[in-house]
Amino acid sequence: MARVVVDVMLKPEILDPQGQAVQRALPRLGFEGIADVRQGKRFELEVEGPVDDAALARIREIAETFLANTVIEDFTVRIEADQAADAALAAQAES
Amino acid sequence: MARVVVDVMLKPEILDPQGQAVQRALPRLGFEGIADVRQGKRFELEVEGPVDDAALARIREIAETFLANTVIEDFTVRIEADQAADAALAAQAES
Repeated sequence: MARVVVDVMLKPEILDPQGQAVQRALPRLGFEGIADVRQGKRFELEVEGPVDDAALARIREIAETFLANTVIEDFTVRIEADQAADAALAAQAES
Repeated sequence: MARVVVDVMLKPEILDPQGQAVQRALPRLGFEGIADVRQGKRFELEVEGPVDDAALARIREIAETFLANTVIEDFTVRIEADQAADAALAAQAES
């Protein structure tokens, strides 16, 4: 099973109070040198079957229609190899 | 300025009601073939100065102490090239 990751972040021009709160807290906690923090969401989707262009187009539609609010958020879709699944396959191949 | 991304996800053994809600909604909305959805957080940190091993160790400490709750969450830290900054540098180099 393949894993597809959808990252959803506020657009750069949109104020991010959560990220700002983290960024302002860092110096108080002894961490200097972080100029900016933005906080967003990460979705991991386990896809049944092959992740071909059609599947990716469908996932982009999912992301656009209801994982992200495209008025204020940008999203990216990318395939991530499921290491656990790969390891399981490798173990099967060995046995 | 370099960008470091911290991904924070619930540990696999921890129930993820947000992700489950998304996963259950998908078939109702006409999207089949997504076996599982997990929802987590993504932090983008803009780091001043070079991102060397010391900086990464400090960011791992930030992630561990207060971006993630390591009792229930796993986190990963990785460097991401800031494309906007790269483009700006390239433009400067050209001019």
